[in-house]
Amino acid sequence: MIVPKGFRFAGLACGLKKRGGLDVGLLVADELATAAGVFTRNLVKAAPVLVAMERIKAGRTRAILVNSGCANACTGEPGMNATLSTTRALAEALHCQAEEILPASTGVIGEVLRAPLIVSRVPELIGMLSPSNYEAFAQSILTTDRWPKVAEVEVGGLSGARVLAMAKGAGMIHPDLSGDGLPHATMLAFAVTDAICSQATLARALERATEKTFNACSVDGDTSTNDSIFVLASGKAGAASESELEAAFVTVFSKLAQSIVADGEGSEHLVELQVSGLASEAEALQVAKTIATSLLVKTALAGKDPNWGRILAAAGRARVKFDPNLARIAIDDIGIVENGVGIGSAAEARAKELMQAPTFSIRLSLGTGPGHCRYFMTDLGHQYVDVNAGYRS
Amino acid sequence: MIVPKGFRFAGLACGLKKRGGLDVGLLVADELATAAGVFTRNLVKAAPVLVAMERIKAGRTRAILVNSGCANACTGEPGMNATLSTTRALAEALHCQAEEILPASTGVIGEVLRAPLIVSRVPELIGMLSPSNYEAFAQSILTTDRWPKVAEVEVGGLSGARVLAMAKGAGMIHPDLSGDGLPHATMLAFAVTDAICSQATLARALERATEKTFNACSVDGDTSTNDSIFVLASGKAGAASESELEAAFVTVFSKLAQSIVADGEGSEHLVELQVSGLASEAEALQVAKTIATSLLVKTALAGKDPNWGRILAAAGRARVKFDPNLARIAIDDIGIVENGVGIGSAAEARAKELMQAPTFSIRLSLGTGPGHCRYFMTDLGHQYVDVNAGYRS
Repeated sequence: MIVPKGFRFAGLACGLKKRGGLDVGLLVADELATAAGVFTRNLVKAAPVLVAMERIKAGRTRAILVNSGCANACTGEPGMNATLSTTRALAEALHCQAEEILPASTGVIGEVLRAPLIVSRVPELIGMLSPSNYEAFAQSILTTDRWPKVAEVEVGGLSGARVLAMAKGAGMIHPDLSGDGLPHATMLAFAVTDAICSQATLARALERATEKTFNACSVDGDTSTNDSIFVLASGKAGAASESELEAAFVTVFSKLAQSIVADGEGSEHLVELQVSGLASEAEALQVAKTIATSLLVKTALAGKDPNWGRILAAAGRARVKFDPNLARIAIDDIGIVENGVGIGSAAEARAKELMQAPTFSIRLSLGTGPGHCRYFMTDLGHQYVDVNAGYRS
Repeated sequence: MIVPKGFRFAGLACGLKKRGGLDVGLLVADELATAAGVFTRNLVKAAPVLVAMERIKAGRTRAILVNSGCANACTGEPGMNATLSTTRALAEALHCQAEEILPASTGVIGEVLRAPLIVSRVPELIGMLSPSNYEAFAQSILTTDRWPKVAEVEVGGLSGARVLAMAKGAGMIHPDLSGDGLPHATMLAFAVTDAICSQATLARALERATEKTFNACSVDGDTSTNDSIFVLASGKAGAASESELEAAFVTVFSKLAQSIVADGEGSEHLVELQVSGLASEAEALQVAKTIATSLLVKTALAGKDPNWGRILAAAGRARVKFDPNLARIAIDDIGIVENGVGIGSAAEARAKELMQAPTFSIRLSLGTGPGHCRYFMTDLGHQYVDVNAGYRS
């Protein structure tokens, strides 16, 4: 990985996680960076989300302070005070304004962040900062994740700039992020680039890339109170256009979103849904989301059963118009439905073989319209229940 | 049970169910009865649904022919021909028009109904008809159900009329039924009454009662291709008003809906959600549906964990406006959230005890508005996965 110029990282174990491990991460820009963010549309927003939404408006950020092990959501005034005290302590140590620090948290809802655990370790955290320490940062933001999620890419064109992005997420994953700020495990993502760009350019590139990537994946259909994505641009490399930045963000975010779904709590499969033939992309997405969150589809995937009746029935309740008699369904390249009826048991037996693989695609064509989309989903089996029926205990 | 005058019932094992057992049911009115129906809003509708939707328009029905073991959905022309041939055979035997027979099917999607198995047994089925044989009918319509579902009530007022209703359903249960006919396991319900009433009265009473009962319950969030409810009125007792009929239907349908949710595939708990304090009943229902279909809430219920953060987070993504700082949550009478924050671990420990019971309520108040609703939901644990990850095999 080549780290974009102008950023340093650190990660530390402060004792917030019951099971131990790194749980506080710090990302610092050498100088004030251009910043943009998108946040959960969930009406119930955690204290750090409320603070970051307000602070991001200025478009200038010095550092991001993240903790795992506690979402600090539904914690009222004490929770808000806890978030403010951690960013205040960091601002003092960095000799900047508290408003130039963005907070983010992930973990259990309803517990107040134990701020002193973080505040007392701020000097140590700052002492660990280095450009190469992004792996510790990527580790520190994890909760039920099985692996850290890091992606990088060179920005196209002549800027010579790069993007490095890190994310976390495995449960409560149904991102619905918006730049205009309507929004547990949670998805968090952080990207840094050394491109030169305006704040408006950065914000638009972030929103469009989010729509095509994080907002088009689901583990369990539950949109979190804490979902946040931040991008910082240091301007230490050349100037990049909006489309170049958007393309670079789409590349790294798409990798991270797929990694999140593959790491979905208890899941065995990363399934790419391709929906086509509808009147618009929005309708295709509506159908994809309905299928991706259908319990009957998800359990059939766990059973490696090409149960296309459940897929078609889910599409049929998506409140989108199509002619079921035109429906075609394939698993990878093996067609199992043509003109709305099953092709037969031999095709299904071949499809079932493909469904043993950790990754495969479901292709659903519902007509002749231009609307299509890609969407990433996962299965639901016993391990999902194990992870989630006892998460707090 | 006292059976309304003018109806006879039968049930028979025709070999449609892989595991054997009664799988064809017949309900016959002695004379043409006044009839009304509501059907799934799923765009993908099974052949029997398409046929019944057309035939119910005349408002006069002689008999209902139901099979379990095969949904006859997504079966194209052969499926349609199969449904038509069974009702034709029954009409000939009853000396009535095929248009006076309503078909219904439930079972696996994508397999054509093996009509000859039914057609050859029609004489035998008719020979078994009797007013007291409703239990065989109630058995014959079951699929993954663990028990039959029968309820009866006397219609209020002076009519002396009664309502007897039978239903089936345990999975693919998220009824969304409509009288104007926008729409696997499936929910089916059949009610007979000997009240005198007009077709319009019967249809309105049915639609309103459905909205308050079957349309306010969910097992898995998946609306079926086959959901149908039929009511027949023989007019053999006295005249009943619309409100009297609606109240009687609400009584029996509410019992049946609760029985369906309690029997939800693999479920341990029947949970009554009470949502209040919103601007309208529609908003309260929207919040209730979002909570009832949240995987994280359902798995927490399986774990008997009063994880109110998941409940509040689900409410927050329902796209309904409320002030999270006013939120109150209680399990039965034990408050666990006040003003949007947790009351504490002692309260949660008491709530956890209540959650060991097979039935309890979750009460969620989100403000001071008049909008409220009741909704029935269930948990999701290992048994749900066992039932659904291998349903077709």
